[in-house]
Amino acid sequence: MAPAKQHSVFLLLCFFITKLSPVLAQTKPVFACDLSNNPGLKNYSFCDPSLDVETRVSDLVSKLTLQEKIGWMVNGAKGVSRLGIPNYEWWSEALHGVSYVGPGTKFSSVVPGATSFPQVILTAASFNESLFETIGKVVSTEARAMYNVGLAGLTFWSPNINIFRDPRWGRGQETPGEDPLLASKYGAAYVRGLQQRDDGDKNRLKVAACCKHYTAYDLDNWKGIQRYSFNALVTQQDLDDTFQPPFKSCVLDGNVASVMCSYNQVNGKPTCGDPDLLAGVIRGEWKLNGYIVSDCDSLNEIFNSQHYTKTPEETAALTVNSGLDLNCGSFLNDHAQAAVDRGLLNETEINRAVTNNFATMMRLGFFDGDPSKQLYGNLGPKDVCTTENQELAREAARQGIVLLKNTEKSLPLSPTLIKSLAVIGPNANVTHTMIGNYEGTPCKYTTPLQGLTASVATMYASGCADVSCGTANVDEAKRIAATADAVVLVVGSDQSIEKESLDRVDITLPGQQQLLISEVANVSKGPVILVIMSGGGMDVQFAKDDPKISSILWVGFPGEAGGAAIADVIFGHYNPSGRLPMTWYPQSYVEKVNMTNMNMRPDPTTGYPGRTYRFYKGPTIFSFKDGLSYSQFNHELVSAPKLVSVPLEETHVCRSSECKSVDALEENCKSLGFSIHLRVKNVGEMSGSHTVFLFSSPPEVHNAPQKHLLGFEKLHLVAQEEGVVKFEVDVCKHLSLVDENGKRKVALGEHVLHVGSLKHLLNVRI
Amino acid sequence: MAPAKQHSVFLLLCFFITKLSPVLAQTKPVFACDLSNNPGLKNYSFCDPSLDVETRVSDLVSKLTLQEKIGWMVNGAKGVSRLGIPNYEWWSEALHGVSYVGPGTKFSSVVPGATSFPQVILTAASFNESLFETIGKVVSTEARAMYNVGLAGLTFWSPNINIFRDPRWGRGQETPGEDPLLASKYGAAYVRGLQQRDDGDKNRLKVAACCKHYTAYDLDNWKGIQRYSFNALVTQQDLDDTFQPPFKSCVLDGNVASVMCSYNQVNGKPTCGDPDLLAGVIRGEWKLNGYIVSDCDSLNEIFNSQHYTKTPEETAALTVNSGLDLNCGSFLNDHAQAAVDRGLLNETEINRAVTNNFATMMRLGFFDGDPSKQLYGNLGPKDVCTTENQELAREAARQGIVLLKNTEKSLPLSPTLIKSLAVIGPNANVTHTMIGNYEGTPCKYTTPLQGLTASVATMYASGCADVSCGTANVDEAKRIAATADAVVLVVGSDQSIEKESLDRVDITLPGQQQLLISEVANVSKGPVILVIMSGGGMDVQFAKDDPKISSILWVGFPGEAGGAAIADVIFGHYNPSGRLPMTWYPQSYVEKVNMTNMNMRPDPTTGYPGRTYRFYKGPTIFSFKDGLSYSQFNHELVSAPKLVSVPLEETHVCRSSECKSVDALEENCKSLGFSIHLRVKNVGEMSGSHTVFLFSSPPEVHNAPQKHLLGFEKLHLVAQEEGVVKFEVDVCKHLSLVDENGKRKVALGEHVLHVGSLKHLLNVRI
Repeated sequence: MAPAKQHSVFLLLCFFITKLSPVLAQTKPVFACDLSNNPGLKNYSFCDPSLDVETRVSDLVSKLTLQEKIGWMVNGAKGVSRLGIPNYEWWSEALHGVSYVGPGTKFSSVVPGATSFPQVILTAASFNESLFETIGKVVSTEARAMYNVGLAGLTFWSPNINIFRDPRWGRGQETPGEDPLLASKYGAAYVRGLQQRDDGDKNRLKVAACCKHYTAYDLDNWKGIQRYSFNALVTQQDLDDTFQPPFKSCVLDGNVASVMCSYNQVNGKPTCGDPDLLAGVIRGEWKLNGYIVSDCDSLNEIFNSQHYTKTPEETAALTVNSGLDLNCGSFLNDHAQAAVDRGLLNETEINRAVTNNFATMMRLGFFDGDPSKQLYGNLGPKDVCTTENQELAREAARQGIVLLKNTEKSLPLSPTLIKSLAVIGPNANVTHTMIGNYEGTPCKYTTPLQGLTASVATMYASGCADVSCGTANVDEAKRIAATADAVVLVVGSDQSIEKESLDRVDITLPGQQQLLISEVANVSKGPVILVIMSGGGMDVQFAKDDPKISSILWVGFPGEAGGAAIADVIFGHYNPSGRLPMTWYPQSYVEKVNMTNMNMRPDPTTGYPGRTYRFYKGPTIFSFKDGLSYSQFNHELVSAPKLVSVPLEETHVCRSSECKSVDALEENCKSLGFSIHLRVKNVGEMSGSHTVFLFSSPPEVHNAPQKHLLGFEKLHLVAQEEGVVKFEVDVCKHLSLVDENGKRKVALGEHVLHVGSLKHLLNVRI
Repeated sequence: MAPAKQHSVFLLLCFFITKLSPVLAQTKPVFACDLSNNPGLKNYSFCDPSLDVETRVSDLVSKLTLQEKIGWMVNGAKGVSRLGIPNYEWWSEALHGVSYVGPGTKFSSVVPGATSFPQVILTAASFNESLFETIGKVVSTEARAMYNVGLAGLTFWSPNINIFRDPRWGRGQETPGEDPLLASKYGAAYVRGLQQRDDGDKNRLKVAACCKHYTAYDLDNWKGIQRYSFNALVTQQDLDDTFQPPFKSCVLDGNVASVMCSYNQVNGKPTCGDPDLLAGVIRGEWKLNGYIVSDCDSLNEIFNSQHYTKTPEETAALTVNSGLDLNCGSFLNDHAQAAVDRGLLNETEINRAVTNNFATMMRLGFFDGDPSKQLYGNLGPKDVCTTENQELAREAARQGIVLLKNTEKSLPLSPTLIKSLAVIGPNANVTHTMIGNYEGTPCKYTTPLQGLTASVATMYASGCADVSCGTANVDEAKRIAATADAVVLVVGSDQSIEKESLDRVDITLPGQQQLLISEVANVSKGPVILVIMSGGGMDVQFAKDDPKISSILWVGFPGEAGGAAIADVIFGHYNPSGRLPMTWYPQSYVEKVNMTNMNMRPDPTTGYPGRTYRFYKGPTIFSFKDGLSYSQFNHELVSAPKLVSVPLEETHVCRSSECKSVDALEENCKSLGFSIHLRVKNVGEMSGSHTVFLFSSPPEVHNAPQKHLLGFEKLHLVAQEEGVVKFEVDVCKHLSLVDENGKRKVALGEHVLHVGSLKHLLNVRI
């Protein structure tokens, strides 16, 4: 065979083969109602996509035995082959990218990695609601693509919207921070991104999200106190104005398909076994359209750790009767039948549970036959880790990074003037640390060192063997720092310091990191940039005070492209715009305050200082919403009312003492809205994004927060550009307070509105 | 609940929970004869582990329909639920660690990574036979551990033992190099490591290995010429003394459970459809105990690309009748039934094929019920990525790294004297590049920069955006090089340069890498260490000649711990002992020689220079077995015969003109063995390992190789220590040649034995 002659044929062949080989390695998605395999299924109503979900589920449930139904109440659901229903693994995760945590998702040569976005706490710092949703949308596209080749499920147990109540919490990194409004907006937006279909069909789901962990869960393992049996003592007031709002918003605004109940008890009752919290609130008040799932193995904890029930059957009955639909674990599989046999549990409750579970799967198209013929059926490995998706991961990190100190405009560094850069610290050249927990295998990594080296010549010394930094290698680090034009120190924590099942005890930088930083800063001849990579805040007062440390950046766990984003900010390719989504407390705070104290409000009688910017008045290292820019933005109030009258009628839902639920308000109180217009001008020399915040300080009644967030808007302005931000304020929804009994009220009197950098007095009267 | 009081209880609980959570996420291994699920199966003989394999397989095959049998002739084998047989995916890979290539293996949160050893070409450079086997043993342990949690299969299609015939071959990196003896020893040792059980039961397998790709396959895609239709024209002499020996050794010495036939044709016949090569040689002569599998989709290629057969049914019939047992792809599933229906294929051949397939699965314990109750049933995630396994990956890389130039003993660098080290080059801080192809997700990465930085302060510049190095960033690199006490340049290739389906055209360093190296070397004030990371050899004559470049190291693709191993060698924590397993040709060679020319021997009439150290006499950049040490080793011959007489009897198998197969020789020619004893002394100041080679240069008859390897032994000697190496030489097996007709003969006359650095004349006479 003459090679030259056959050239074009071979090239064609090459293309053909290259396309073919991956096909061989692919596996198929799991789905029910595969008519091509079993044409008889077409006679079943539940396999008919033209019927409504209710009819189909009802048909399906009527055909199942009790044992078959119980098999669909656990995450490893058992197939019913006579009805063409395969096994299904409910447990997949997608906190900030498709994750390998959870048995439903795996990586292989077909999809060796997925886009790994910043850990949520950093994304939250972007205060950019549309970014939250866009990330969710990309993640669900990659998830569907992986489902199509049999590597992922359709049900993802993300996001985590618990309030980051205490800086020590190892899972604070997973959350959108300490503020209920931010957490609400983040949760609803991310859920919409995951769930909403491009065809606008609200009855169907792209993938199913899950808001977790309901509720008042924010302690993992502090000094041996474990989430599995911790009893969170929460006041009705804190529950209603701090812990519950993100979940309420997730269901009502996000239309989430699932809520997960937590491990802990709330006021003596396990959340997964509390009929008021589940059937009462989630299903009854909020009208969840979806399923309630238990955290993994939490039923077992109720019985074995909490000893809340006397027998496993009681636990099974209690949880299902409380409104639980799905059990992560095998507990219901093992004990639900016995619970029915003993008369503790009625089959109608089981029917309700599996109806919710199957309805979710119906909305996902699981019962519509071959997924390749449905919307999203064309997604595949080519749609994972695309250039665009990876670029979004970088953009998200850039938007989140927070500039906390910048003396004498040390930043941005000029890539042309800086001839040599010393890069120092245990997190300076890390890969896995950047992607935080609930991670998947990323597409690729760009470490801080790699990112910085793309622009200038670098010298590098880790300074410590790892973040625990038992003994800093100070001499080596000083040696390179002394000769460099500028120094970037990348320090902080990783999953060995703060993680699931491990809360911190101290909130200073671990080990000898402070020594390393101070010694290096002391010998440096140029700017010293301190980059803190962490989930929670750090007491870095020494660095704030040290005149040799010119700049401080907090970068969270910035995801796969973190190093590129850090370099973008340091070299001014991106103007930082992130703001802290949580208070950075001093170490003295954690030495004084028990992590187990759930109270948000201070207690003057004990000296307990309270929590978060809404209630805590003590000293901070950095505060909620802190964050600098390379530009300056001026604010000018265009319009805002000075007076609002609440109607006199006693029956009006907005009547001061009678405010009820937000959804009710929306229908009846529109007339009580007003708007605030603020003109913002970028008066600096650099383009940049800028978040405008609207806070309110209500009258000091009912232990009201000193200040609380009503809204935020991010806008991008080129140098010297002006823009207008408009806040729509609903008096009852936004200005109301929760009283000690959990009732919402609008306080009469003077509310101080903090509009951007301005203050505006608003008088609320009858 | 009082925390302090409950402390110990919580700690206990913590332990319990930590142990429990992963269990939830685990999936189970796939296996047949699950009696706990289906007690009726115990009545079937094939489920009875006490019976012999032959009886069990025969019982099983007799119970299957033709269609069911055909379902077990493809890699995605179809379960037979009525007999308790699940689906099984035959295709897993473990070339240098458990790999995600192949649909049978996946990574998840349960096992997010596996130990990634150096790419095979570097491991081969260690010339350490026991290391080959030890790596195989660790890989099979991790593979079994992953099987136990449902993440891998039991049948691994590794190793690749094709001869690295041409430096351009993109898959040369996967092989043990160019020498048939080294490839034979590597293949047999790695297969033993994978397959051999710790209980010594030879009838059973730990996992099943597969030697591939049979045969004369070593061209992927060169200038558009594709492996899928390439017809390798091979002389009988080259086939018998170059291409076939590794496969023969793999079957006879390694007892491999499978051989894979390749895509290409050999002398006009597709290897998977050649009854002489399959049924004749593998099954008939070598008596393979196992299955013959086709490369993936190669049956389709025979029909659609090679047009070797007129119909798909003919292809199915031809391959199965030729001896093929298993088809990677779906071809046999689609066409075998029709081939039977048309009378082209007899069911007895199908019975033979599935008998071989099922017998392999029986030997793996697949039909013995619950794997957790069998040997290796206790392996799990804890046994993957252990500290020991990761340390072995580092040791393997250290043993393979080859020191090619070391003027004025520039290496090792002293970590105390070198105050600053410039680390430069596109491969200096890479992760994925280090693990080569047929990779899995590694446990972790240590890049060269990370490895070096662990010992000294470093400056780093990539110098090029990537290895293609379109435009080198020379200025930045020079800037840091000029100020450093020493420079390490890490250059070479990656999978964008040389990979499966992509052979190189040029063998110089890509793009402007040479420019970068030369300019950097020119401004450096101290030693310049050039580290070449690549699969194939590179024409780096310029670097050999440049007096500013003090040292050259070749590090292959050194695996997950590559950076640590490189640093170990550079700083003298390890004394280099690797030797090149292939010739490094000059660029002029590839400009003159067509890759398609399979001839090993030179052709004086055309100027064709021949291939490998055995036949090629032209200039090289570096040669087979080149490699320096930081120590010196002296050799002294203790004993060796000067004369060997071959018996006069014409019927003796060793009679000069009558030597037959090696296995036959072993029984009859023991008396014709002799031994060579060599004393080796480490006369240097540093401990180190040293490989002693035994070559022979036979009389110049029958186009004999100018020199060929008879044996190698590696030993470790501390400074000033002496040791003795003993080679056992079998005259017929080791000194024989293959003549032009493929017959083995012992040439009479003078054989020059190269014993270490010495030469010894051996006269062979009648």
